[in-house]
This record gives sequence, C-alpha cells and structure tokens, in this order.
Amino acid sequence: MSAPDNAAAGAVPPDTGAPPAAEALVTALMTRDRFSQWLGIEVLEAAVGRAVLRMTIRDDMVNGFGTSHGGILFSLADSAFAFATNAGGLLSVAIDCSVSFPVAVRPGDVLTAIAIEQSTTKRLAFCDVTVRNQDDVIAGHFRGTVYRTAIPHQL
Amino acid sequence: MSAPDNAAAGAVPPDTGAPPAAEALVTALMTRDRFSQWLGIEVLEAAVGRAVLRMTIRDDMVNGFGTSHGGILFSLADSAFAFATNAGGLLSVAIDCSVSFPVAVRPGDVLTAIAIEQSTTKRLAFCDVTVRNQDDVIAGHFRGTVYRTAIPHQL
Amino acid sequence: MSAPDNAAAGAVPPDTGAPPAAEALVTALMTRDRFSQWLGIEVLEAAVGRAVLRMTIRDDMVNGFGTSHGGILFSLADSAFAFATNAGGLLSVAIDCSVSFPVAVRPGDVLTAIAIEQSTTKRLAFCDVTVRNQDDVIAGHFRGTVYRTAIPHQL
Amino acid sequence: MSAPDNAAAGAVPPDTGAPPAAEALVTALMTRDRFSQWLGIEVLEAAVGRAVLRMTIRDDMVNGFGTSHGGILFSLADSAFAFATNAGGLLSVAIDCSVSFPVAVRPGDVLTAIAIEQSTTKRLAFCDVTVRNQDDVIAGHFRGTVYRTAIPHQL
Repeated sequence: MSAPDNAAAGAVPPDTGAPPAAEALVTALMTRDRFSQWLGIEVLEAAVGRAVLRMTIRDDMVNGFGTSHGGILFSLADSAFAFATNAGGLLSVAIDCSVSFPVAVRPGDVLTAIAIEQSTTKRLAFCDVTVRNQDDVIAGHFRGTVYRTAIPHQL
Repeated sequence: MSAPDNAAAGAVPPDTGAPPAAEALVTALMTRDRFSQWLGIEVLEAAVGRAVLRMTIRDDMVNGFGTSHGGILFSLADSAFAFATNAGGLLSVAIDCSVSFPVAVRPGDVLTAIAIEQSTTKRLAFCDVTVRNQDDVIAGHFRGTVYRTAIPHQL
Repeated sequence: MSAPDNAAAGAVPPDTGAPPAAEALVTALMTRDRFSQWLGIEVLEAAVGRAVLRMTIRDDMVNGFGTSHGGILFSLADSAFAFATNAGGLLSVAIDCSVSFPVAVRPGDVLTAIAIEQSTTKRLAFCDVTVRNQDDVIAGHFRGTVYRTAIPHQL
Repeated sequence: MSAPDNAAAGAVPPDTGAPPAAEALVTALMTRDRFSQWLGIEVLEAAVGRAVLRMTIRDDMVNGFGTSHGGILFSLADSAFAFATNAGGLLSVAIDCSVSFPVAVRPGDVLTAIAIEQSTTKRLAFCDVTVRNQDDVIAGHFRGTVYRTAIPHQL
C-alpha cells in the first residue's frame, strides 16, 4: 500500500507532538475494547464530546424474559459515553451513570446511541446518551458523569 | 426419568396451584438468561426481594483502558435486581437504574452482588444492589426501580 | 374590576366538558402550589410536555457554604417537571428524579428551567429539565420519571 | 452567662489546632444554612460520614396537588447528605444526586433522614440517605456523590 493511500485511511495520525485527534483516539480505544467488540459495536462518528455507535441485538444477549438484557443497552450507551468524554484527550473515568428503559428491546433490533457532552468543568463532564431502535423509537435514556484526570491519552 | 432423579434435580416444584417458589423461579429465569450465562454468573441465594450473585471478570470483558467495562458490573447488578424483584411471582420490569463506580475492576477480580428490595408499593418496587470485589471493597452502588405488572410468572 | 377584564385574565376556562387546556391547568396547579410561590417561581411557558419557569435566588435560600442550597435548584426543576408532565391532563406522580450540579448558584442569580418530555408510554413519562443561570451557563441537569395515573385533572 | 454554662453549650470547641470536630462543624454549617432553617430542620446526630435530621411538613410546603412538594423531601435529604460528607473536615460539594418517592408526604408528617456514607475515595464520597415518616414508612430513597476538595473547613 502506498503512502498516500495509507494517509488517506487515517488510522495513524502523523507524529506532530499534538494530542491524538478524536477519531484516532476512539479507534485506538475501540481496538482494545474487547467487550464492545463482543457486542458488535460499530463507531459511526467520533468527535470531541460526541460519539455515535450502532449494534444489533443477538439471541445470546437476552435475559430470562427473552428480551434484551438491560445490561446490553447500558453497555452500548456506556461505550458511547466513554468515547465522547475521552475524545478530548484526557483520561476520563465514569463516576455515576443512570439509565431509563421506555420500551423493551428484542433480538434483531438495531440500536443507535448518540452521546453528547452537555457541560464540562475543570474536573467533571456531564454527558447524555439517547438510544433509539430501528423504528427511531427511544429505547434508552442514559446520563453519565466522568471525572477528568490530568493524564493525557497516548495511542 | 425416574422419580428419585427428578426429585434430585429439584428444578420443577410439585404442581400445587401455588405460585412458584422464589428459588425455582430464579432458576428458571437464569436457565433462559443467555447473557447472564455468558457473564458466568452464579446464583448464590434467591428469595423474595433478595438475590446474591457472583462472577469472575475475564479478559474478554475489558474496555479500551484494560479495566472491566462499566457495562459488566452494571449487568451483574441488573441481573441481581431482576431476580430479587421478580422472585415474588409478578412479572416486574425495570424503569430506572443508576450505578456509581468507586473503584476500578480488573480481569481476575471476583464480584459479588447483593440485591435487597428496600420498599414496594402496589405497582413499584425500589431495590439496592451493592457489588463488592474479592477484598470486600465496594466496586459498585446500583439502585433500580421496577414496574410490577399484574402478570404472574409461570415456569 | 369589571367582568370583561376578569374574563380576559383567563384563569377560568369556559366549561366545555373537554379536558382543561394545558395553560389553564398549570395556572391552577401553580395557584395551589404554596412552595413554588415561596420560591418566587414564574411560569413563562406551559404546554403539553413542556414548561419553562424562572426564579431569582434570594439570601434566605442559601446553605451552610453561602451558596444556593441544592434543594432550591432541584425544586425549581421538579416544579417544571411536574407542570410539563401533568399538562396533558392526567394526574402524573414522580417516581425517580436525578440532578447534577455543574456550577455553584449564588444569591442574585436568575435561574431558568426548561422541561421537555422526552418519551411517554401508557403509564410512564420521561422528562429532562435543563436549568441555566443568567449567563446562559447550565447550572443543573435534571431528569425525572412519572407514573401516569388514569385520573384526569379537574380544575 | 457563666463559663461552665458556656462550655456546656458546646458550640465553640477549644482551639487545639486540630480540625473542628464533626458536631461543631455541622452546628456551624447549620447556623449559616438559612434554607435548612426555613425548613425547620433539627440535627439529631452528626458524626463523620453520618447525620440524622428531622423536620415536620407544614402547609406552606405543598405542591399543586396538596401533598408535600418533592423538593422538600429532597432538600431535607440533601442537607443530611451535605452534613454527613462534610463532617470529616474537607469541603465537599455535591456532583450528582438521585431520589425516589415510594409514598406521598402530607402536611403534618414528620420526616427523619438518616445519611450514611457508603464508600469514599481520595476525591469522591458516595452517600445514601433514607427518609422515613412518623409511621416508619420509607418516603424517600436518596443517593448522592460529592467531590472532596483538599480545602479544610474552618469554623
């Protein structure tokens, strides 16, 4: 593969000494994130304070009622929350999260999570994640708070 | 299958017309709960309004930071919450959940979740789940509210 | 004051047998809501699933640190939440609420709360309330869930 | 007033250079906390990581339904949370709080809030507050997280 092609692929940013760009950082996080990989999560968008993820519910993700286990939707939203709040370049760790479940989710459903940072302070960031199903119905309202450490991410 | 074998298996209570006992109900839920099985969850105790579960964090449960994905601890707590609140015999579905993460969890850690219903009304139940690691340190504070339907569980 | 003036004030809608309009309903709720009156809350907008309220922080609303007591911002948001979710005409009662505090609020600050219902089911509604100060900085992220009874409001 | 009487009142601890004792610190916070005073809050107990408060619901604390405004119970719990988490001597500010309302509260009801810190890290503390009415029925489940600054309280 030629150098221009490689640069076009964009996975490896040039070494400029600047913090890694949001997309490259989220790609690196996703590469190491074995549980998000098991979930089949795809990253549709990644930017500072914003991430959009998608996944399809499988038969091995059900609870005892035959619907999607609540932990599956939470995990999708939690990954979106982590990507959005870490994309700015500082290691940020979850403190408190909440989730509400307006409707049941079932195998075959396709969930899309949109995470948007709502406000940030020196040490905290507050982020909302809305999860919709393939019919554009809201299946989950997630909200999370991170503690922003002073440690920059390194790829 | 002979009667003694059947009795030894213990999964099927005699048909008395009474609602299924809490333990048999939780066993039935767990048998169908493919995601809790993937997590490797063991049911240590199950009673009306109470459940104790245990699991070990594996390498395929990590996030992009190499620690346990927040969705793993949430899922363990959510299963304990579901078992505790459904063990009374009425189909009960999660409305709102919250979780806080005081310490990081790592592969090899053994988590134990204790779910205890704190109060119930005709249509709602409020449940706390405390998750501790193998050093008895609290790794997660979970709280959940269920809507109690009028539909009895059937095994 | 003459009768036409009185009618123009609009507090009492004509008896048409239809459910009271959102604005009239919120006016009636506010008239009886002695704590919202103590807070000095003004209703700027009221519609089905939406309410906008405003208040000014007074010296008698501080906590032991001299900043606005957390319960003051919560109460403003909770009133907006109640008005937005009840304006549809069914008695709706709060189940679970959460609030986050990105910045401190001080006497003299003017807070505006915008409540917007995010999703509804037959028996539940989920509502977000964002509270901003006079500099348009977010001072509170509130989220609440109500149980929607089948009981219509009567003025 | 004589010296012995003064000592018996206990409001002013001797100047030993040590951080102020939990009780003295909570007394000082309560003295400046004009909103908790308006609520009629009494401090029954105060210790590091623990506070017990009591108040009586008055007619001027109702919402539009004639029951106690949700912000009243929240405020009582929030004061207990603040006292319990600040009693250790470091200025600690609320980040995220949640509250659930199992039963309605009415004028004349007497509420008692018990706040107990559940876990602490270097910079965070997680605290539960259970609010009961005069019949020992749980009227509120509150949970809060504080950011523990490095700033010691001074009386």
